[in-house]
Amino acid sequence: MKQPILTLVGAGPGDPELITLKAIRALEKADVILYDALANDALLQYARPGAVTRFVGKRYGCHALSQQEINQLIIEYAFSHGHVVRLKGGDPFVFGRAQEEIDAARQAGIAVNIIPGISSALAVPASQMIPLTCRGINESFWVTTGTTQSGGVSPDLLLAAQSSATVIILMAMSKLETIMDIFAGCGKAETAVAIIQNGTTEAEKTVIGKVKDIAFRAQHAGLCNPAIIIVGEVVNLHPSFLQTYAQAATRRVSL
Amino acid sequence: MKQPILTLVGAGPGDPELITLKAIRALEKADVILYDALANDALLQYARPGAVTRFVGKRYGCHALSQQEINQLIIEYAFSHGHVVRLKGGDPFVFGRAQEEIDAARQAGIAVNIIPGISSALAVPASQMIPLTCRGINESFWVTTGTTQSGGVSPDLLLAAQSSATVIILMAMSKLETIMDIFAGCGKAETAVAIIQNGTTEAEKTVIGKVKDIAFRAQHAGLCNPAIIIVGEVVNLHPSFLQTYAQAATRRVSL
Repeated sequence: MKQPILTLVGAGPGDPELITLKAIRALEKADVILYDALANDALLQYARPGAVTRFVGKRYGCHALSQQEINQLIIEYAFSHGHVVRLKGGDPFVFGRAQEEIDAARQAGIAVNIIPGISSALAVPASQMIPLTCRGINESFWVTTGTTQSGGVSPDLLLAAQSSATVIILMAMSKLETIMDIFAGCGKAETAVAIIQNGTTEAEKTVIGKVKDIAFRAQHAGLCNPAIIIVGEVVNLHPSFLQTYAQAATRRVSL
Repeated sequence: MKQPILTLVGAGPGDPELITLKAIRALEKADVILYDALANDALLQYARPGAVTRFVGKRYGCHALSQQEINQLIIEYAFSHGHVVRLKGGDPFVFGRAQEEIDAARQAGIAVNIIPGISSALAVPASQMIPLTCRGINESFWVTTGTTQSGGVSPDLLLAAQSSATVIILMAMSKLETIMDIFAGCGKAETAVAIIQNGTTEAEKTVIGKVKDIAFRAQHAGLCNPAIIIVGEVVNLHPSFLQTYAQAATRRVSL
C-alpha cells in the first residue's frame, strides 16, 4: 500500500502561468487531484496519466460537496491511492479553509504538506499596477473578507478605515455600500478605490473611483463577485484614476 | 535596436521552487537580469547564455547601490540591451520599492510589466503551517513593517492590536519589545506570537511564545532580521505552541 499523503497546493489567482514550480511538481507526482472551481482547469495538464482528477468545487449550487464530504474524500483517496493533491485557488491559507482539511487528514493519520500560492488579494492589484505598499504613501496592507461568519460586516473594518493601510476586501460586493459608508464616516470620502472583477484572466474588468462614488460606478458597470475591492492612496497610482478625476476637474473648470 | 522593456519579477520567499512559471519564462527571455540579495542565486540558472546578470542588492553595506543608481542602470540597460528583468525577493509590490523603478522607467519611455511573486509575509507562516485566516478564528490579516519612513513605530499598530486580524510584521526585530508592549496594552498579553527567521530556507529558525514573553524567548534563541513576526490566535494552531504551554501548565501543577 502507498503512504497516504495530503498536499495542499495554491493554484494562484487565475492566470495559469502564475503557479509555482513546486506546485507543478506536486501535481505531476499526485495520485489524485481534487480541485476547486477557482483553480484554472488548464493546470490539470500537469496530472500524470492515470491520476484521478476530480472537481470538488463549491461554486455551482446544486453540484456542491460540503466541506465534510471533501474532508472524507481526501481521507478515502489518501488510503486507497496514496498522494492526494488538494488544488485550491489563490493561496490555501488565505480564506481557503485549509485548516479544516488539515485537521481531518491529521486525525486520520495522514501526513500533510502545504505549498503556498499567489493570493489574488496581492496579485490582482499588481496586475493593475497598483502597489499594496509604496514608500512615502503607506507602510501596510490589510486583507479582509469584510464579513464575519455570521454574515455581518466585520467590526475590524472600522479600525481599518482609520488606518493608513491599503485595505483589500474580498467577496464583499453585496456589502459595498455599507463598507464605503464606514470609510466615509472616517473622513475618507475622497480616498481612491478600485474594484477588479475576474482579475488576471481575460474576463478582467476594472472600475476606479472614490469612496463617495464607487458604489454608483460599480453598479453602472455591472460589477459583481468574484471581485476585489482596494481602498487606499496607492490606487491614485493607477493611470485611470488620474485620468478620470483630471477630466472631471477640467469639466468643472470649463462650466 | 531592441525595444526597451522593464519586467519586475517576484522571486518568492527563499525556496527557489517557490517561483512562478511566468517568472521563469521572463528570466529565460531577459537580456539583462538585475537581482537583489533576497532573491535566491539558484534562480539565475534560468538566464539564457549571453544574458547580463548583475547583483544590485542593498544588503551588504559598502557594496550597495542607491535606489537612484539602480533606476539609472535599468534605463541604461533597457536602451543598450532591450529586455531588463528586475528580480526582487518576495513580491515586488510588497515593500519592494517597485513604484520608484516603474516611475523612472516610464519617464524614460520604457514599457513596464509586472509578474507578482509569493510574498514571504504569506509563505513563511504557511511553511510553519500557520494559516493567516481560519474560519471561526478570524477573517483578516494585516501585513506591516511596523515602522514608518522616519523610523518610528507606525501608529497603525495600535489599530491592528485592537482588531481580530492576524498581524504580520516584517523587518521589525529591533522594535520587538515596543511592538509587543502595544499589543499587551490592548489586552493581548496572552495572545500567541511566532517569529520565523530565514523562512522557507534551510537556515529557518522559529520561536513560539506569547505577547508577554516572546521578546525574552527571541533574545534567548538569538533571533534577528530577516525575520517575520506573526501575532494572532491562528498561531495557536502551530504544534509547538500547544506543546510549550501544555508543558508549562504541567510544571505549574506539579509544583
